[in-house]
Amino acid sequence: MPVGTQATVKTLTPDELYAMGAGIILSNTYHLHLRPGEDLIAQAGGLHGFMNWKRGLLTDSGGFQVFSLKGLRKIDDNGVHFSSHIDGSPHYLTPEIVMEIEQKLGADIAMCFDECSPYPCSYEEAEKAVQRTSLWAARCKESHSQADQALFGIIQGNVFADLRERSAREITELDFPGYAIGGLSVGEPKPQMYEMLDHTDTWLPVNKPRYLMGVGAPEDLVEGVKRGIDMFDCVLPTRLARHGTAFTHQGKLVVRNASCATEFSPVDADCDCYVCKNYSRAYIRHLIKASEMLAHRLLSYHNVYFLVKLMENMRNSIRQGEFTSFYEKFHQNYRF
Amino acid sequence: MPVGTQATVKTLTPDELYAMGAGIILSNTYHLHLRPGEDLIAQAGGLHGFMNWKRGLLTDSGGFQVFSLKGLRKIDDNGVHFSSHIDGSPHYLTPEIVMEIEQKLGADIAMCFDECSPYPCSYEEAEKAVQRTSLWAARCKESHSQADQALFGIIQGNVFADLRERSAREITELDFPGYAIGGLSVGEPKPQMYEMLDHTDTWLPVNKPRYLMGVGAPEDLVEGVKRGIDMFDCVLPTRLARHGTAFTHQGKLVVRNASCATEFSPVDADCDCYVCKNYSRAYIRHLIKASEMLAHRLLSYHNVYFLVKLMENMRNSIRQGEFTSFYEKFHQNYRF
Repeated sequence: MPVGTQATVKTLTPDELYAMGAGIILSNTYHLHLRPGEDLIAQAGGLHGFMNWKRGLLTDSGGFQVFSLKGLRKIDDNGVHFSSHIDGSPHYLTPEIVMEIEQKLGADIAMCFDECSPYPCSYEEAEKAVQRTSLWAARCKESHSQADQALFGIIQGNVFADLRERSAREITELDFPGYAIGGLSVGEPKPQMYEMLDHTDTWLPVNKPRYLMGVGAPEDLVEGVKRGIDMFDCVLPTRLARHGTAFTHQGKLVVRNASCATEFSPVDADCDCYVCKNYSRAYIRHLIKASEMLAHRLLSYHNVYFLVKLMENMRNSIRQGEFTSFYEKFHQNYRF
Repeated sequence: MPVGTQATVKTLTPDELYAMGAGIILSNTYHLHLRPGEDLIAQAGGLHGFMNWKRGLLTDSGGFQVFSLKGLRKIDDNGVHFSSHIDGSPHYLTPEIVMEIEQKLGADIAMCFDECSPYPCSYEEAEKAVQRTSLWAARCKESHSQADQALFGIIQGNVFADLRERSAREITELDFPGYAIGGLSVGEPKPQMYEMLDHTDTWLPVNKPRYLMGVGAPEDLVEGVKRGIDMFDCVLPTRLARHGTAFTHQGKLVVRNASCATEFSPVDADCDCYVCKNYSRAYIRHLIKASEMLAHRLLSYHNVYFLVKLMENMRNSIRQGEFTSFYEKFHQNYRF
């Protein structure tokens, strides 16, 4: 899922995302609640209407963002008091309030309000977040009533396998139509993240979508799919683009670097996207050096396309029973 | 001509400009000489190839930019020494050097290197610039040799009618395939600019294109066409877009203003561009407030489209012998 935190996948239009084959995007309850507010969006016919997006839409609950506001928030079992990162204004979120906001936003999939523990953290702290996440998941389910919106549960547990297992058991007992794995890719070493995913097939039902939150490096998508993950979201493609970096089939390319100044080849010779068919590394590097927005736009387009196609290719390889060879080929070519 | 100073019409792709019906864009010799340099662009197959632009292309000579570098430049009859606004490095331009650069850039139309006097300035200073512009125009013509590139002459004379007439006579005597009127819209009152254009038909041949440089407000395009101008360029549509302002058929609209926060209507109800068909004022205002680049992109698209269509409508009205009624209708609706 390309990420449209503030009701826009940065620099891109819905039409461009349709053309890439993107079927669903993610937006964020915390950000939209603060600006422009869920009531304005409801007036515009919900988030689909507001941002002119006609395909699938998922809203994250904002739990991750609120818990990232260190020093600006106070949490108890009922909910979270916090100060806006925009203007310092006081806000209060509970599972019930978040459900109300997400229903006003009207995405196809809403996420439960969860507590995401930081990395590193103690076992006790992680356990407390698991308990609260389960408590809040039950309250979210109880207060969520919009029939045409699916509500997904979120598994927490930090890097502790037994907490992950317990969280998965408690959340799946509530019977959601889909399950997310939250609180990973927050600073832990990659092998530790992969280890937490090793039991996905045991802990989560096979007949419901599994969504690994906030994960989006190409190698992590491949490792995630190998471990049974169906959905991902990540700001990486558009963030890297703003920093002048592109995904390629051979690994990341810093287009900003002087080495690209006289390269009249495309960003990625193995890519058939609009950008790679029409623009050179030298031109895009010039745009970066000249602080031209078209640089962000072209690299965002390419990077989002790269991940959308990577997922499409993995889906095709699974359908054809060839995921293992896909996996090996990916690792032969891709430099981390 | 939409303006692509640094080899990009800010935020837009060539394909979007084609779709609008833009037949020619302008780029800038001064900026491209400093970054990325004409040799790199020549290596890429000229400016058309470098920026992937397949239609008409005009390069301004950079005269206007160099003379705007007050305190950073030193001028004599041979040429101009100046310091780069990017890194302070020393540069030297003469008519012959500018012709060499413009030929490497390879646009369809190159402009002579001229001296643009400031506003306000004394008659003597304006006269000196007219003399030098004529001297340099002859040297430009002498050293320009690229057969598939048209070289246009530039008329100066500030706000002094007799200097304008003299400059027009001296430049047209050199017999260029097109003529530009430079040094207007640099701070003088609009009536004074219009007055300088009143004699266009007398001073410039009817069978060659007449180009009013740096002018692009909707009302100035209409007043210019009324006085016999064929071509314009201006950064206004993309600059206004960056400041959250849009052209509309009723005048300028500051989409950034709070009054647009809950307006779910398009930027301009009388516009049929992609942006007005798909996005609301409220959504674009949200993007502006959230510092999202898509705001610049959508408003740039609309504003450039607005001017391209305005020119198209004026061409059609002239062909149908209805320009006078077009002119009256425009003034009835448009608030300055």
